[in-house]
Amino acid sequence: MSNYKASRTEESDKILSIFAQNLKKCRIAKGISQEQLALTAGISRSYYTEIETGKRNISLLNLVKLMTVLEVDANFLSDFEEK
Amino acid sequence: MSNYKASRTEESDKILSIFAQNLKKCRIAKGISQEQLALTAGISRSYYTEIETGKRNISLLNLVKLMTVLEVDANFLSDFEEK
Repeated sequence: MSNYKASRTEESDKILSIFAQNLKKCRIAKGISQEQLALTAGISRSYYTEIETGKRNISLLNLVKLMTVLEVDANFLSDFEEK
Repeated sequence: MSNYKASRTEESDKILSIFAQNLKKCRIAKGISQEQLALTAGISRSYYTEIETGKRNISLLNLVKLMTVLEVDANFLSDFEEK
């Protein structure tokens, strides 16, 4: 835990990247475009694109909005720790 | 979905409140104080207090930090939709 901060940037990038991949898979499985997902969830398209490309940290409330539209539970977050 | 935005504040408050309760339960089950959890996760104590009282939206990266320290998976987020 002591070196957690030291590797924070690299670790953060990895987490956001894995999340982005999981999110994209869920969206494609649902058969909808980035724009459709963003619109239905009530978030901006540009914000969504940054999320799905791993460039931006997402908030819990926006995460729940996306999960609701995608009809997924939080299990799709569970891959974080091992990869 | 059309009235999602209209009820966003109330809905958001509910989500943050449920999350806060789940988080507190996990922390207490782990037997650590707010301060210990915040310190170990590398986030500020005041920020953590706002999260655990449902006053603040948490980011994915901070959520993952807390989940790592608490040794819980994302299932503890899954209660959102029904309550």
